[in-house]
Amino acid sequence: MNSLHTHDRMKGFFSPRHIAVIGASENNLWFGNMLDNARRSNFDGTIYPVNPKADEVWGVKAYRKISDLPAGIIDLAVIILKSQLVLDAVKELSSAGIKNIILLSSGYAEIGGEGITRQMQLQRYCRDNGILLMGPNCLGFMNMAENVSVFTGGAVEGNLLAGTIAVVGQSGATSEIVVSSLLDNFYGISLYATTGNEAVLTVEDYMEYLVHDDRTRVIAGFIEGFRNIPKLKEVAYEAARRRIPIIVIKVGRSEKAQKAASSHTGALAGNDGVLDGFFRQHGIIRVDSIEDMVATAGIFSRLALPGGKGLGICTLSGGLCGLYADLCELYGISLPSLTEATIKKLTEALPDFAQPDNPLDVTGSGFQTGMDRINNILLDDENIDLLVTLTLSPKNSEDKLAHAVNDWLASLKRASSKPIALIPFKEMTDYARSYFNENGLYYIEQPQTGLKAVSHFMKYAEFIRNFEQNHDDTE
Amino acid sequence: MNSLHTHDRMKGFFSPRHIAVIGASENNLWFGNMLDNARRSNFDGTIYPVNPKADEVWGVKAYRKISDLPAGIIDLAVIILKSQLVLDAVKELSSAGIKNIILLSSGYAEIGGEGITRQMQLQRYCRDNGILLMGPNCLGFMNMAENVSVFTGGAVEGNLLAGTIAVVGQSGATSEIVVSSLLDNFYGISLYATTGNEAVLTVEDYMEYLVHDDRTRVIAGFIEGFRNIPKLKEVAYEAARRRIPIIVIKVGRSEKAQKAASSHTGALAGNDGVLDGFFRQHGIIRVDSIEDMVATAGIFSRLALPGGKGLGICTLSGGLCGLYADLCELYGISLPSLTEATIKKLTEALPDFAQPDNPLDVTGSGFQTGMDRINNILLDDENIDLLVTLTLSPKNSEDKLAHAVNDWLASLKRASSKPIALIPFKEMTDYARSYFNENGLYYIEQPQTGLKAVSHFMKYAEFIRNFEQNHDDTE
Repeated sequence: MNSLHTHDRMKGFFSPRHIAVIGASENNLWFGNMLDNARRSNFDGTIYPVNPKADEVWGVKAYRKISDLPAGIIDLAVIILKSQLVLDAVKELSSAGIKNIILLSSGYAEIGGEGITRQMQLQRYCRDNGILLMGPNCLGFMNMAENVSVFTGGAVEGNLLAGTIAVVGQSGATSEIVVSSLLDNFYGISLYATTGNEAVLTVEDYMEYLVHDDRTRVIAGFIEGFRNIPKLKEVAYEAARRRIPIIVIKVGRSEKAQKAASSHTGALAGNDGVLDGFFRQHGIIRVDSIEDMVATAGIFSRLALPGGKGLGICTLSGGLCGLYADLCELYGISLPSLTEATIKKLTEALPDFAQPDNPLDVTGSGFQTGMDRINNILLDDENIDLLVTLTLSPKNSEDKLAHAVNDWLASLKRASSKPIALIPFKEMTDYARSYFNENGLYYIEQPQTGLKAVSHFMKYAEFIRNFEQNHDDTE
Repeated sequence: MNSLHTHDRMKGFFSPRHIAVIGASENNLWFGNMLDNARRSNFDGTIYPVNPKADEVWGVKAYRKISDLPAGIIDLAVIILKSQLVLDAVKELSSAGIKNIILLSSGYAEIGGEGITRQMQLQRYCRDNGILLMGPNCLGFMNMAENVSVFTGGAVEGNLLAGTIAVVGQSGATSEIVVSSLLDNFYGISLYATTGNEAVLTVEDYMEYLVHDDRTRVIAGFIEGFRNIPKLKEVAYEAARRRIPIIVIKVGRSEKAQKAASSHTGALAGNDGVLDGFFRQHGIIRVDSIEDMVATAGIFSRLALPGGKGLGICTLSGGLCGLYADLCELYGISLPSLTEATIKKLTEALPDFAQPDNPLDVTGSGFQTGMDRINNILLDDENIDLLVTLTLSPKNSEDKLAHAVNDWLASLKRASSKPIALIPFKEMTDYARSYFNENGLYYIEQPQTGLKAVSHFMKYAEFIRNFEQNHDDTE
């Protein structure tokens, strides 16, 4: 989209109260899924199915044609029609003043040949007539912050928890997995948008909107190809000014993936090595998997950025110290040596046979007797900017020891200006996951994935420190 | 241990019926944990606490001194004494003909100075008197195949499921996490041994024993330092002959980890780069984390080795195809092109708009209509040696669609000579985990970790093919 102010209009796009669905039918899953998702979102606006042969669809009053719709109140139209019929419907909607459209249909650039021509005609018409169009070949969106879902996918599971992470996906199914995994880990979502073939609105437009969205603090993107690198650069600059990390899975490292991307949404994958450099330069965080994306988005959504690059680790086994130290080396995390003052204090606090170092092995007896004092000593060390410390994961509400440890850690977290991540010693349970989240505690479930996320977190904080030193215009 | 036949004696070491515990007391957790773990294992032998001041310990009849123990029947002694008192106890046990000893106490090489001297004295006495000694500074073992636990740790959770994976750990706490994670994923364990400081029996001795143990098909080791590289080489050779993979976490890539290892069990970490080359040459699989170890041990325990190096992937989204293709590139997994015959058959089986390739996007409609036919076509392709294919993870016993899909996949797995790994489309639940395992289906829970495990699996199979071509003496 060329308009500089598209993102202002997009606020309305994502907050419709009256939604027309052209081609709503009981013959496929789409409209049914859309109704289900709207109900799950507690959507309290109105949906207007348009179907030439029905008085109602799935129990919702229907209209025979677009011109039958109540005039002047529809603020978003969804199109589920064969691709050959779409352009006429778009023109009719446009004439009726409906300029916000989600086009779910496939049969465009992703099939090549005539699909490409069809997409270009659609694009030209929308641009000439000021239409904001999401898609084609997409699943719609979920605006969890405002209880609006216009979403035809069936695979987003879990409670639709509102929060600060926005998800933008060029692949519907894949981004549904990202969203489900975030929700499964109790990370709330502000907005989830699927972009499809991007005939009009591109992933850069969505990201630009999200950078300006007050509810969004983290942007996660599943990307097959960027289409507008100059705009991405502007968006990344504005995101850095606002300290909003952009985390992407960008497929296309391999030839196979480049081929899959072009046949999927018709996106050009681009030169991967050049993109990697671009990402680094502009503070865009690239991850390789959905697991890494969830853990990385998670740490940004839960913890304040550290003031420096030193990680302190506190655990209860020499073996774990070695394992974590090696993972930190692998992921480029700095484990500073402890200051002399810290070593002196730890020597007094720990059992005789313990050896103060970072990572710190408090030993089994240390864990039983002095974790509060030990964690405070580590947090006081001027070289430590983020602390990863051991906890117990409670099995159930009767697990008194684990609750005592975590209550104390929660108060430590409130008192300290330095971010604290917990690393549970025992297997996580569903109870433990909800307990940690309800108490605002960030925990690392899988040390490898978790330390990789910590590494992205530390590097981004360093990027921001450099960025802010070099720019006077930060907020 | 120098004897070539140590591993024959070790069979008895791990199958005791009458266990004396020297220094059993109610004053610390060790003996209580040992009793708990013995009960969890359904141990039906007898435990004989020895305590100079008690007639019973935790309800078990006790003996005042070693010489009070019934003569000639104790086949294993456990020592929980201050390190200064240990050598005399060892001598007394040896005189009474008790030559299998687990020494739990710390205060040896790991503390340096006099600890090193003490450990050398102990080592010399044991070697001169033919004593098999596990430890010092260890937690004991769990022989899950034979319902014998002599184990003082408190962090192994879950059902003690017997199976084919053996775990050897130089770090007690860390290996407890490995074992708990394996059990949590329903992977059964043959033997779990903690080696401690290895004054007498070293990790190479345990591995040698396990390679000859009929119940063990996979060996997983948490290693801070090897002590006997020539023996390790012999063990690796014998393991390759028997197609038993040895998977290790070897800490010490980083200086910090090397330091932690030496202060922990007194092991020398060795030159890491040289070790890496040694591992590659001898088919030892090195992984970086407990997550990777569990997934890698898991795939070896569930699937037969593939006959070649070609992976086929079948999923339902172009985005996932790209993501998986990139991960395969990252981990060096070969994704062969499909043969012309396969492409022809797939073109007939798939919807018009689908494009046959590897990874294969069957599209949403393909998934609903023809997964049986599509999977069979892929398995028939001569370039595909292992198939990773999409499934649904059932939410509960009422989830008919997911059960139908998986029943069919289970019969496909029985019918095909090629290994098949499943990759569930939706979030896993506890129900789904137990369902897959009860039905002998191997599934990938986290694609990144899972594909890394697939990569180790494929590379090991290639190592074995080369090994068997070069050696005529294979079984």
